[in-house]
Amino acid sequence: MTTTAPHAATPAAPAVPRQEVPRLACDYTTAAARRRMAFLREVTGVRPEHIGRYSFDPAVCAGNIENFVGVAQVPIGIAGPLLVDGEHARGIFYVPLATTEGTLVASYNRGMKLLYAAGGVRTTVTADAMQRAPVFGFDGAREARAFGEWVTANFAAIKNEAEAATRAGRLRDIEQFQASRFLFLRFNFTTGDAAGQNLAGHATQRACTWIQEHYAGIRQFYLEANLATDKKSSHLNILRTRGKRVTAEAVIPADLVRRVMHATPGEMFRARQVSNLGGLMAGVNNNGNHSANAIAAMFAATGQDIANVAESSAALVHTELRDDGGYYYSITIPALIVATYGGGTGLPTQRECLELLGCYGAGKVGKLAEIVAATVLCGEISLGAAVIADEWVAAHERLGRNRP
Amino acid sequence: MTTTAPHAATPAAPAVPRQEVPRLACDYTTAAARRRMAFLREVTGVRPEHIGRYSFDPAVCAGNIENFVGVAQVPIGIAGPLLVDGEHARGIFYVPLATTEGTLVASYNRGMKLLYAAGGVRTTVTADAMQRAPVFGFDGAREARAFGEWVTANFAAIKNEAEAATRAGRLRDIEQFQASRFLFLRFNFTTGDAAGQNLAGHATQRACTWIQEHYAGIRQFYLEANLATDKKSSHLNILRTRGKRVTAEAVIPADLVRRVMHATPGEMFRARQVSNLGGLMAGVNNNGNHSANAIAAMFAATGQDIANVAESSAALVHTELRDDGGYYYSITIPALIVATYGGGTGLPTQRECLELLGCYGAGKVGKLAEIVAATVLCGEISLGAAVIADEWVAAHERLGRNRP
Amino acid sequence: MTTTAPHAATPAAPAVPRQEVPRLACDYTTAAARRRMAFLREVTGVRPEHIGRYSFDPAVCAGNIENFVGVAQVPIGIAGPLLVDGEHARGIFYVPLATTEGTLVASYNRGMKLLYAAGGVRTTVTADAMQRAPVFGFDGAREARAFGEWVTANFAAIKNEAEAATRAGRLRDIEQFQASRFLFLRFNFTTGDAAGQNLAGHATQRACTWIQEHYAGIRQFYLEANLATDKKSSHLNILRTRGKRVTAEAVIPADLVRRVMHATPGEMFRARQVSNLGGLMAGVNNNGNHSANAIAAMFAATGQDIANVAESSAALVHTELRDDGGYYYSITIPALIVATYGGGTGLPTQRECLELLGCYGAGKVGKLAEIVAATVLCGEISLGAAVIADEWVAAHERLGRNRP
Amino acid sequence: MTTTAPHAATPAAPAVPRQEVPRLACDYTTAAARRRMAFLREVTGVRPEHIGRYSFDPAVCAGNIENFVGVAQVPIGIAGPLLVDGEHARGIFYVPLATTEGTLVASYNRGMKLLYAAGGVRTTVTADAMQRAPVFGFDGAREARAFGEWVTANFAAIKNEAEAATRAGRLRDIEQFQASRFLFLRFNFTTGDAAGQNLAGHATQRACTWIQEHYAGIRQFYLEANLATDKKSSHLNILRTRGKRVTAEAVIPADLVRRVMHATPGEMFRARQVSNLGGLMAGVNNNGNHSANAIAAMFAATGQDIANVAESSAALVHTELRDDGGYYYSITIPALIVATYGGGTGLPTQRECLELLGCYGAGKVGKLAEIVAATVLCGEISLGAAVIADEWVAAHERLGRNRP
Repeated sequence: MTTTAPHAATPAAPAVPRQEVPRLACDYTTAAARRRMAFLREVTGVRPEHIGRYSFDPAVCAGNIENFVGVAQVPIGIAGPLLVDGEHARGIFYVPLATTEGTLVASYNRGMKLLYAAGGVRTTVTADAMQRAPVFGFDGAREARAFGEWVTANFAAIKNEAEAATRAGRLRDIEQFQASRFLFLRFNFTTGDAAGQNLAGHATQRACTWIQEHYAGIRQFYLEANLATDKKSSHLNILRTRGKRVTAEAVIPADLVRRVMHATPGEMFRARQVSNLGGLMAGVNNNGNHSANAIAAMFAATGQDIANVAESSAALVHTELRDDGGYYYSITIPALIVATYGGGTGLPTQRECLELLGCYGAGKVGKLAEIVAATVLCGEISLGAAVIADEWVAAHERLGRNRP
Repeated sequence: MTTTAPHAATPAAPAVPRQEVPRLACDYTTAAARRRMAFLREVTGVRPEHIGRYSFDPAVCAGNIENFVGVAQVPIGIAGPLLVDGEHARGIFYVPLATTEGTLVASYNRGMKLLYAAGGVRTTVTADAMQRAPVFGFDGAREARAFGEWVTANFAAIKNEAEAATRAGRLRDIEQFQASRFLFLRFNFTTGDAAGQNLAGHATQRACTWIQEHYAGIRQFYLEANLATDKKSSHLNILRTRGKRVTAEAVIPADLVRRVMHATPGEMFRARQVSNLGGLMAGVNNNGNHSANAIAAMFAATGQDIANVAESSAALVHTELRDDGGYYYSITIPALIVATYGGGTGLPTQRECLELLGCYGAGKVGKLAEIVAATVLCGEISLGAAVIADEWVAAHERLGRNRP
Repeated sequence: MTTTAPHAATPAAPAVPRQEVPRLACDYTTAAARRRMAFLREVTGVRPEHIGRYSFDPAVCAGNIENFVGVAQVPIGIAGPLLVDGEHARGIFYVPLATTEGTLVASYNRGMKLLYAAGGVRTTVTADAMQRAPVFGFDGAREARAFGEWVTANFAAIKNEAEAATRAGRLRDIEQFQASRFLFLRFNFTTGDAAGQNLAGHATQRACTWIQEHYAGIRQFYLEANLATDKKSSHLNILRTRGKRVTAEAVIPADLVRRVMHATPGEMFRARQVSNLGGLMAGVNNNGNHSANAIAAMFAATGQDIANVAESSAALVHTELRDDGGYYYSITIPALIVATYGGGTGLPTQRECLELLGCYGAGKVGKLAEIVAATVLCGEISLGAAVIADEWVAAHERLGRNRP
Repeated sequence: MTTTAPHAATPAAPAVPRQEVPRLACDYTTAAARRRMAFLREVTGVRPEHIGRYSFDPAVCAGNIENFVGVAQVPIGIAGPLLVDGEHARGIFYVPLATTEGTLVASYNRGMKLLYAAGGVRTTVTADAMQRAPVFGFDGAREARAFGEWVTANFAAIKNEAEAATRAGRLRDIEQFQASRFLFLRFNFTTGDAAGQNLAGHATQRACTWIQEHYAGIRQFYLEANLATDKKSSHLNILRTRGKRVTAEAVIPADLVRRVMHATPGEMFRARQVSNLGGLMAGVNNNGNHSANAIAAMFAATGQDIANVAESSAALVHTELRDDGGYYYSITIPALIVATYGGGTGLPTQRECLELLGCYGAGKVGKLAEIVAATVLCGEISLGAAVIADEWVAAHERLGRNRP
């Protein structure tokens, strides 16, 4: 057949002129927010009563939002006590979870109760790296390879440039990935207590400017081309870490599982085996049960970037039925992106949630990562047991009652 | 070597007795929330001032949260006007985005401006299915296959049972996936305006009870074993849809790209090619730029389950450089899980955000899906152009100033 | 930076004129093969003595090769007896394996011995489908969806057209996969005893010609666009089968494992768990040990298309430690592409190898699939045990002696 | 429901006693082969006439096969001249392809003709590494991390041990991948002209013995646990190379594409875009057309391990439509496992095929890798054009005539 250039139909341009959302000179003010809300009422006919009821001065939002009109009030429930045996987090925590999904808090709470009785959750941050992955194009693969050798030889200078752009960031190493006539460089930074995406972006940008000034033959350059892989789950990040790589583990005595979970370790382990098989066949990025639930709820509560749930929800679960009947359960989160400084962490409720965990500010990011991982583990076991004990649907029926 | 049974060290049990978060008889009340907050103050020493300042009666939260103490106030910014040429959404929308990431609203706003001038975003919901995927174990693969034949032959009866458990749900079909001595059944429901996970769970549960009563030889049964794949990204869902499968597309004239985006379609297309290569090598579940940003921000604003960002952030981007210089850009979101009824959609600010979009309540879920997809497309193009025009880091520097 | 169009350096054109490999009017003859061999001697200076020593009339190769010069003599070893408890294959088989990898035959032989003692390998073909997956492009996603509805409504007519092009093929169903403005149709055929790629291609081609004559608005059409996915491993084929989906399973008593394998089921199972974890992290298309070894060796021996090892080597392993100490081991091969008719199956040594298995000709393809799967299982267990027993490297040292 | 332990039915033990394939004291002799053939005749009733007709002394097979009975005679066709502009391979080659798939040689031949006219194929080996990936288990993740630090600190000593076990192998580095309480170490070797799996296995084994003697607290050890990932395709190997990473690239003038391929670069490029989309959706490990065909045929001809087609068939294709109308086409093969020494390379026909390419023996492996990649590229373009020009099915009809 003749392949004609395809085209999409274009809708008629709207009759009314385009009306932008108003901005004021002093834009992070109640007045500006109200002005925009009035505009919204005008163009939509809707009169929101709750969005505009926030408890802080909009000035605190500068740097976090544009065209501010108010807030989403996301309910927070408290699960706990969570007993953590980490290196950064040690002891008892009450965990704020912001969610609208009924049973979520109750389910995590149940898991925390079980693991409290089992002696707590052991947590370990095993790696730490935030990336930006610029790509350089050359005449051909051979030239790309030569560039890679140059980068290796000039690492000290590149590191110097990159780190000149940031206070908190340190360039750990640069990984190289070649395909076609391109060399992708994966700049791995440690970023202190910030999540560090912007820091990494800025520092890499500066380093790349220097590289372009010092290396001839670069035909294309992009600061990012899907190898970081920001806001996306990828096998690369499962292998090589993005943010923190954290493992939470626990051994639960058999009688405890039976008493609290109404299931035996053997039953739970057998079900897990089938979930591993199902997940392998489905092509999951997470063979666990529902780590995204805790991660999303803690991210929303503590001012993390909730879009990072996309990548942070990847997980590797490994469990073992021990000879003494105990159940070893571990989850490794290879791309947990958390911060206790910068981003949304300083906003009023977000900061308070961090403070409830003793995690606000400098030197706390490892602690937060451990608490998140420990919480995730509690939920894995709780849901895993519920599926066994046929309680799952029943629990949703009872607690999640306003669902259709 | 001798492989001895490994064991994890157990922390000493905490000296103080375990203190549960208090619950009251009437638990969804301000009094109960305050009681818990007092408890938190006592055990943590922290005195939150903002979490407890919500604008609604806690009674509305029943079914959405347990151990309610207050709310996360997540800033909402408005992007728009967004011009949508959908089947359910037609015309102009102002989109509430709840986020703490600076530049996000501005970036989407810029893309909306471009696509408004280009005639808007064309959106299409091409598929709709919510799943629960129970698994049945047998003596061997042969028996699993025989069971599959029985399920096919008895589909009408199974459908009958499943649908008896729900008002809104309809069982579309049951897909079968065999591995080892297991048959996984993927129950595909349409679920009206609810996201439908609980509905699907409940209906599938009932159908499976019936199945177990009518089929001999089932050795194991689990209502879920990672083939749904709830709260997890999977290749299966990219292929076979979870929630809505939506495509947003637009053709942007070359001069418009240049004028608004400071980049040519040719430059943007070339960069996209390299992103496709990078993403393929990295093993991404999304070859786009950052769909998770819009999805997370709209989910938080409108009361969707934000944990679903894990799966809803998967995306397939396809672009074309047309002969007339125009740039065709499309994104297909294969697992967009949205609701306009049930879950968190009825909470005060969440409902208001849906109302701002004209999406609250019955018969609106297709409209919401289209608006989300259209918003996502605007952000894809905006960030895609920024990477080209070297504006990306600079924009974050200017707007995201409270970052380290 | 300025992005200039990249270019690859071009080598100087060779001074000597281009010399094609000679072809004769009667090309599948010894004379033609010798003529080409003489040409090779002339242009390379090499005088092969063995390639030209084949035992058949080159006329038999027509349809299998072009520019025939002789044969690769690939050593065949025999493993067995293999005891199979299949539906198509029942009883004892001696399996020809063509390979150059030392220890391969010995390893499979050892596994066969173990599973013979355990009562044999149970095999089941659970699905059968060969595909071609044409793609149709439209103005937009909406038009692609409409086309999909038309295809569903016109399935009978399309099936009619497709089947008119083939004797052996039956069109089972057409799966639809939409992305952007494209609809991919996956035509699933059963193909009798042929592998069926060409049959499927031909029949789909004819159906697509008919479709193009009867449906307006198709803007692009390709008979294949990486959704089949011929000669490539894909998650789609793991989920939905390509060729035969076969499961081989066995339960091995604990004392047998110990006696023959010098390992306990518990040790083997524990190691398997770690392999599952490793494979999940690595992103494998096969969590087993080395199914490709048996598949490649049997494909080479029996005239299968060895390029299909790319897709046929995908596998799903699931094992269980039973309460009585027995070890349940299963492997599911979701894309085993085999034929007992057509392709290379009629060539002299290839046909003889099929005959040794009682698998040459009509009605035998299920039997061959089951024997391959049973062989694969024997090797999985053998290597699995060797890794445990630290015998692995030692075995290669002893048997694979001409390696560096 | 009650979950009872599942069990598979066991077939009745065969009545006749188990008859092993006979072995003689001098087993790599014609007498031994004939003895086994006689045995096969006896137990199967089949009288093979061709398998036993090989042209060499079976003694040459020791180390390559066990239970030798004869050979598979796989037809070899010659494609060429192939013009290569590599670093190791320069000039003209005539490529032996062992296959039974009609049209394969013709298709590669056509692509070679096109790329000859275009100035040849540029090839580059960009990386070289063969792996064994042992795993060590500990009490917990924290202990696994500590072990990783020890490995880094003791790299020199480990390297020393590893290299003491091999002449040709050099330990390049050890990558670490942690999950749960396990640390996987990926030992990356360069292996000279051998494929090197056995070398890597042996050297890693020795290093691991040393490690176990010098590090306390190791609870489990396996020499391999699916992170190498031998005989399996994996994302890890696409990212980090297994064997050689080779890129082949060419720029083809527009008029040449039209004249030889009956398609325009624009048409080919557009089709490629859709293949990229299809492959992304399908979850392929190779977005190209059919690299497995050339790789399998060259592996069979030249004595490579054909089971490695499983991993070597992964590929990354990237193409560009240049401003002057030329078509840039590249393929990167990230896990090409080839040898010119050891394994099957010294067998009679296999060695001759290597000699025809000037690739037998020491110092030739880079050359062979480049010729394979160049051949692959020719086939990619040839099939890519055929799909466009609707010649694909027609060609199979004409040349692959003995198919059903």
